[in-house]
Amino acid sequence: MANGPRNRLQTDERRAQLIALGVRLFSHHPYEQVSIEDISEQAGISRGLLYHYFGNKRGFYVACIKEAAAELASFVRPRPETEKAEVVGQAVQRYLDWVEARADAYLALMHGGMGHDPEVSAIIEQTRAQIIQQINDRIGLDAPRPVFDMALRAWIGGVEAAAERWLATRAPAREVLANLLGATLRAHILAAIALDPDAPIQL
Amino acid sequence: MANGPRNRLQTDERRAQLIALGVRLFSHHPYEQVSIEDISEQAGISRGLLYHYFGNKRGFYVACIKEAAAELASFVRPRPETEKAEVVGQAVQRYLDWVEARADAYLALMHGGMGHDPEVSAIIEQTRAQIIQQINDRIGLDAPRPVFDMALRAWIGGVEAAAERWLATRAPAREVLANLLGATLRAHILAAIALDPDAPIQL
Repeated sequence: MANGPRNRLQTDERRAQLIALGVRLFSHHPYEQVSIEDISEQAGISRGLLYHYFGNKRGFYVACIKEAAAELASFVRPRPETEKAEVVGQAVQRYLDWVEARADAYLALMHGGMGHDPEVSAIIEQTRAQIIQQINDRIGLDAPRPVFDMALRAWIGGVEAAAERWLATRAPAREVLANLLGATLRAHILAAIALDPDAPIQL
Repeated sequence: MANGPRNRLQTDERRAQLIALGVRLFSHHPYEQVSIEDISEQAGISRGLLYHYFGNKRGFYVACIKEAAAELASFVRPRPETEKAEVVGQAVQRYLDWVEARADAYLALMHGGMGHDPEVSAIIEQTRAQIIQQINDRIGLDAPRPVFDMALRAWIGGVEAAAERWLATRAPAREVLANLLGATLRAHILAAIALDPDAPIQL
């Protein structure tokens, strides 16, 4: 029984609980101030078990970041039934839904933890690339073009900065923020078209 | 002579050299991977002297971040002789000038080092607030308004994301990037006006 399905379920559940705790800790404290001792104490488990699951503190941190990124990406992915014209507006709404519901995870993902780290940067980068791909699909851009790539990255950088600010101020109202970010996306695409008028896009 | 002006000058110079070294190290490595031993070895000074100047590793890191932020802020500040209509375009150009010339410092400032840290966040936040203030001065907005604040923060977030991406890709050409960021600033201001039409601005 020790390695049966029930035990396995408990293991997955415990791992998920540990990650939820880690996301909370790393979103409020610098990486170096979060100790394995803190984590194991707050989780009520031994340090040995934590090492068993995640290898070391960095392994635990990266697992937390991956979890937050995967959740966000799955949340903003367009639903199959969505009208083409509504894909982006809906994605902005869902992005803000997730930011609001999972504020800790969002802050951990965006600037919690250890700062410049190649593995963490790659996780965040992958999330951004997925969002850019969704927009490229929407505007019918098959191959990347530097001006569009830059415009969309600037827009996402703006969304990230605005979402983080909004978590602190809660102003303006959520709907106003969503409208603002929808308008700035259209503006970024128009600015890219003006600077790269030969791009084969289909609006 | 030990505390005379010449000695003081040498102290300042050595401190500046140490900060330049720190900016370089922290822009390429996570905070926790940069040790006081590395720094003192590369600087050719004793660890004791490093502690004497900066207290501890965190003190040294914060001094490096402060230096980078101060340099960037002074670089983008409008020159007194600048025509009003050119203030923002010139600031974007100068921001990119600084990013290009001081790529290491820019990366250290934006996401090097220790991740979420209140003191470091405050330094970066102050730089952003100065840029927002310059734009508010330009559009004649005396008192803050949430929609404009959010729009300008989104724009700056976009500038930061674009500048960082551009350091990696160098595409599109610098002038195209500057034009793109100038266009998106106008677009953010127009989007804010549309959502907050009563704002007393003077374009």
